[in-house]
Amino acid sequence: MQQLRLAVIGGDGIGQEVTLEARKAMRAALDGVELVETEYDLGAAHYLETGEILDDATLASLAEHDAILLGAVGGDPADPRLAGGIIERGLLLRLRFAFDHHVNLRPTRLHPKIGSPLREPGDIDFVVVREGTEGPYVGNGGALRVGTEHEIANETSVNTAFGVERVVRFAFELAEQRRRRLTLVHKKNVLVHAGALWQRIVDEVAVDHPEVSVDYLHVDAATIFLVDDPSRFDVIVTDNLFGDILTDLAGAVGGGIGLAASGNLNPSGAFPSMFEPVHGSAPDIAGRGIADPTAAILSAGLLLEHSGLRDAAQRIRDAVDADIDARDGSRRTTSEVGDAIADRIRATAKEHA
Amino acid sequence: MQQLRLAVIGGDGIGQEVTLEARKAMRAALDGVELVETEYDLGAAHYLETGEILDDATLASLAEHDAILLGAVGGDPADPRLAGGIIERGLLLRLRFAFDHHVNLRPTRLHPKIGSPLREPGDIDFVVVREGTEGPYVGNGGALRVGTEHEIANETSVNTAFGVERVVRFAFELAEQRRRRLTLVHKKNVLVHAGALWQRIVDEVAVDHPEVSVDYLHVDAATIFLVDDPSRFDVIVTDNLFGDILTDLAGAVGGGIGLAASGNLNPSGAFPSMFEPVHGSAPDIAGRGIADPTAAILSAGLLLEHSGLRDAAQRIRDAVDADIDARDGSRRTTSEVGDAIADRIRATAKEHA
Ligand SMILES: CC(C)[C@H](C(=O)O)[C@@H](O)C(=O)O
Ligand SMILES: CC(C)[C@H](C(=O)O)[C@@H](O)C(=O)O
Repeated sequence: MQQLRLAVIGGDGIGQEVTLEARKAMRAALDGVELVETEYDLGAAHYLETGEILDDATLASLAEHDAILLGAVGGDPADPRLAGGIIERGLLLRLRFAFDHHVNLRPTRLHPKIGSPLREPGDIDFVVVREGTEGPYVGNGGALRVGTEHEIANETSVNTAFGVERVVRFAFELAEQRRRRLTLVHKKNVLVHAGALWQRIVDEVAVDHPEVSVDYLHVDAATIFLVDDPSRFDVIVTDNLFGDILTDLAGAVGGGIGLAASGNLNPSGAFPSMFEPVHGSAPDIAGRGIADPTAAILSAGLLLEHSGLRDAAQRIRDAVDADIDARDGSRRTTSEVGDAIADRIRATAKEHA
Repeated sequence: MQQLRLAVIGGDGIGQEVTLEARKAMRAALDGVELVETEYDLGAAHYLETGEILDDATLASLAEHDAILLGAVGGDPADPRLAGGIIERGLLLRLRFAFDHHVNLRPTRLHPKIGSPLREPGDIDFVVVREGTEGPYVGNGGALRVGTEHEIANETSVNTAFGVERVVRFAFELAEQRRRRLTLVHKKNVLVHAGALWQRIVDEVAVDHPEVSVDYLHVDAATIFLVDDPSRFDVIVTDNLFGDILTDLAGAVGGGIGLAASGNLNPSGAFPSMFEPVHGSAPDIAGRGIADPTAAILSAGLLLEHSGLRDAAQRIRDAVDADIDARDGSRRTTSEVGDAIADRIRATAKEHA
């Protein structure tokens, strides 16, 4: 029987809670595929207990899997022992960089049953293709005279033709399968070197995709369109930082960050891709069993799709859609939502059989 | 009689049209102050005609004024002669840097009569204090092997204790005069050097302002709050790039970028401050007399306020409010709006006399 070797990093806070439900959904959806799950205890809580963030042996062991399901990592932002983004950088970004997750895929689709904060949201259905291994995320910063009145702190955004081209190609290919509309978002009138590189690569790759219509927006203008006319977007391609900002905003206009799924892809398959909800560990509501597991479950759906298990992925998506359709406003616990979705998946799996 | 020496840069596209109306409003509002206006022909159109962007003599001449009113600069974004943000950087950013406009002040207030794109906007009334002379705007970028598949393009964000402290102090002082709530926005879990500097300075300055409650948001999370709960904000302080992004979004949720005014302040008075609508030159609607001059008129109001002419500034604000109240959806030309507002200003000025 085919195997799917899954590494699970529940992480911190609600990350633990929502990944449990995502795993239920995967088990229910898989058919003729054996799911082999290995749990990794990593995150802020683990670090505070053991002093370990992510050692090389653990990294090597994670690499032995087909895919990684991640909940959320990060503890109390006010805890001085966690200052400087030590967990985010040492764990989450380390994984993205070590496993060369250069495509950070973040779809937004507004379900008709879910209210958008927008008065007239229109038909929201787009994907942000965020570069995942370059930009200001590379850690090429530094500071002098730290803590004095003469401190200077620099951060450098690094962009390479190699790094930009591969993610731009991915975005064009995705656009070909969708509504054939690609928007480059940058700030090329200010970040002129990086901006010129991104624009040149988009222009070059566009030649191979004559059917895709291409436009450009400055990142500031893009935020306006995301609230004034989000239905104009199909595929957005952008750098690591702009993608971070736009996808939180996209999640909000698309019905809430509680529904936003993401995939950190290594399309070559050289290392496992990693799937995670866009939301964080939410220490304020952790442990109460009230987190919405839908984003994690949809992330599991993306995981299956990118592992070539399209039918199983479709079953998850359909079950989530049906669950949302049936929502009547009554409160459910995290596991009630997870169970309801898993039940629906099993029901369709049976029909299908 | 007191004089106000005003330099006017209408600039490109609708910039020309809206500054005419802003000047009408200023003339109507000023009482016992002689307005001495000097027009400067600068912008993309001027550059394409003459090859001049901003020469040192013009810069020196601009410096001889009490304040600068700017419309908008920038031509057709697809014109290759204007690539690389040559006008934005050579003119707009050059002025901000040369005149040390370190406080970029951008208020957002939703007028009850104006529809927000948000379903439940609540009471939107906040100010973004955007740093104006540092961050990734400094032009410390570069590229190697340009145009090849081995290109690498870097952009560096520069942040100094000096530069951050002065804008943070300004923001705290502003918060003292408002609802005493200050939010630092950054991305300190990724841009750790710059982020630590900003957070340290905010913590230090907070000690001198014990009545101001302070919080922190990552820039991505801030965009969510701007659509989900914008009424939580009073004063936001942030860097040049994050401020650029957040204020376009703020303009949109606050009823549209057509109402968003801004001031590039040099609070020391060593150089003239510069006031401009947040919107651009809008080549698509330029020359048709249909641009809304309200943002430019409100920018003129900010100009008067920061020139110590508070009563005149208040007259402009009141007249704009009254004009918006009276809007019935019928279309008016740019000069019809400007004339209506100027008439209202004159009417209140008379009452007052
Ligand atoms: C936690 C943080 C480092 C991360 C990022 O900025 O990429 C998060 O905001 C995200 O979007 O996945
Ligand atoms: C035109 C551009 C350089 C400018 C900026 O980024 O500051 C504009 O977007 C603004 O916000 O005033």
